Amino acid sequence: MKIAIVFGGLSYEHEISIVSSIAMKDVLRNELVYIFIDKNRDLYEIPSSKINSKLFSSGNYSKFDKVFLKKGGFYKLSGLFKKEQNIDFDVALNLSHGGDGEDGILSSVLDFYNIPFIAPRTEACVVSSNKFITKGYAQSVDVLTLPYKYYTKSDSIKVDMFPVILKPVKLGSSIGVAIVKNQEELSYALDVAFEFDDAIIIEPFISGVKEYNLAGTKVNGEFIFSIIEEPQKTEFLDFDKKYLDFSRTSKAKEVDLGEKLNNEIKESFKRLYNTIFEGSIIRCDFFVVEDKVYLNEINSIPGSMANYLFSDFQDLFTKVASNLPKKKHIPITYEYVNKIQSAKGK
Amino acid sequence: MKIAIVFGGLSYEHEISIVSSIAMKDVLRNELVYIFIDKNRDLYEIPSSKINSKLFSSGNYSKFDKVFLKKGGFYKLSGLFKKEQNIDFDVALNLSHGGDGEDGILSSVLDFYNIPFIAPRTEACVVSSNKFITKGYAQSVDVLTLPYKYYTKSDSIKVDMFPVILKPVKLGSSIGVAIVKNQEELSYALDVAFEFDDAIIIEPFISGVKEYNLAGTKVNGEFIFSIIEEPQKTEFLDFDKKYLDFSRTSKAKEVDLGEKLNNEIKESFKRLYNTIFEGSIIRCDFFVVEDKVYLNEINSIPGSMANYLFSDFQDLFTKVASNLPKKKHIPITYEYVNKIQSAKGK
Repeated sequence: MKIAIVFGGLSYEHEISIVSSIAMKDVLRNELVYIFIDKNRDLYEIPSSKINSKLFSSGNYSKFDKVFLKKGGFYKLSGLFKKEQNIDFDVALNLSHGGDGEDGILSSVLDFYNIPFIAPRTEACVVSSNKFITKGYAQSVDVLTLPYKYYTKSDSIKVDMFPVILKPVKLGSSIGVAIVKNQEELSYALDVAFEFDDAIIIEPFISGVKEYNLAGTKVNGEFIFSIIEEPQKTEFLDFDKKYLDFSRTSKAKEVDLGEKLNNEIKESFKRLYNTIFEGSIIRCDFFVVEDKVYLNEINSIPGSMANYLFSDFQDLFTKVASNLPKKKHIPITYEYVNKIQSAKGK
Repeated sequence: MKIAIVFGGLSYEHEISIVSSIAMKDVLRNELVYIFIDKNRDLYEIPSSKINSKLFSSGNYSKFDKVFLKKGGFYKLSGLFKKEQNIDFDVALNLSHGGDGEDGILSSVLDFYNIPFIAPRTEACVVSSNKFITKGYAQSVDVLTLPYKYYTKSDSIKVDMFPVILKPVKLGSSIGVAIVKNQEELSYALDVAFEFDDAIIIEPFISGVKEYNLAGTKVNGEFIFSIIEEPQKTEFLDFDKKYLDFSRTSKAKEVDLGEKLNNEIKESFKRLYNTIFEGSIIRCDFFVVEDKVYLNEINSIPGSMANYLFSDFQDLFTKVASNLPKKKHIPITYEYVNKIQSAKGK
């Protein structure tokens, strides 16, 4: 099975998408073709043998073939006569972290052109990429979240209890996130967060809170889970550390929280995954506070696909790629238009 | 200002999109160009002077120019030498009801190609097109909804109290919706609903409940509201009636619920519209039960744009078209890639 890795994109996480995608060369045994989306949303085909991070920072990627979208796939103009040529692959993997990749834009585009892809569909992207919508969704599926306040740019913002953690609603990888310890730090943190986004949430910051990550997917109605990992962290993972984290390929160490908590984490994952996330491999990050499980966030396109959490990622990946959700057939019959026409006697 | 009306699409509401779009000829004084999306998601440019509903049911639309998407707009191949030609317009209006148009696919595609458009952006589409996600979102913005149960296809479904109303989570215009009065009717209604969707919600059905519609938008941070209307209805609007409703152009009659309820409906609208719906003109349908306001549903692309609710729709439309939300600039600097490269001494 040949995989087209679609990466880059108009996103604050453009660069981590590059390292995450390059890491897939060491993770997947599949034949790979790379489709790079540059900051102008122009697409290029990068041969797997030529890919390295410098290619992008130098701008040299633009020497490769430009790609455009048409029904069923990616195309390029090739040869002397610039003949349209279909780029060969079986399934696309959307590895464009953040921005277009995770907010539903890219998944929608792939869907619109009938390109089979591994990634959350549009709905799942929105539910997971906007932290405010995630909170409401988690509540709907009976998964706890920490209490929070939601503010838009024009709201007056008042914080009574410190420390708090302040997050732009739409960015991943800790961008614009700040731990705010007192009133003095607040206005600077707000300026930074609103620089990135028009809306924020503010949560209590619990120092030393236990965090646990679980990745998984659903194939033919059955859940397949990774191990549960307790990620290494300092106060919280900053962008530099997360950046390196996105190229992880060595296996993670399993943590055993006892049957009750292990199960509660898995059951929470199942309720969150629902039917909405079908077609994707996601990582859910949970907090455990006083033996209760709280959702921190849903990573709908986790760094290097959270391969390091699975004992046999290749097998899992193949299963997902072979069992992508199918769209329902929508019959368009013009029954009503015909009825009106015939009522008009035309 | 020249408007490109994008309509049709892969949707159960394909046909009402056609009548809704044709109605816009009587509503807008702008020069119009029509971009039709057929059931195969092929695009055609239909001249405004040639459009009528029969054109689509007969399949004759395919005699017009085929259209493809490229950065900045819609293109066609024209003349003897099949030269690429940009179709001229200023702003697109997404009038593809249901399916692609309202679920975020089409808005994402327009966004991806940097085409300015009036319609909810991807997030707002998802929040309003999936009734289950709408419920969670409404709760997050402190707007009441009727109690409900959510079920996916594999769940065992138990109803204790009748009558209930059963709705596929993702379809509009009452498709697959049934009022279920007893246990016997339930399994048939479930079969029908799951024919259309993988998930449903079941709500209590309140016979004779008062329903009120309010449309509106936000321009430069200021809300502009329509009148409040009490829509005509039988038990509930079926597809035939809604179909005709989508071509409405005559003005609706205002209802006055008294200052308190009028305000509560408007304040609920504001909280729902939030920042998420910027760029769109939406209609929110509310129930009033014992003087309390409940959201029934958000129509993110209402039939014929709910023009009949506004005293001066043309003026409103022009204001929205001239003040579309802008995307934040995302700088892509390769700072981190460069840092790694320099650490490697390369």
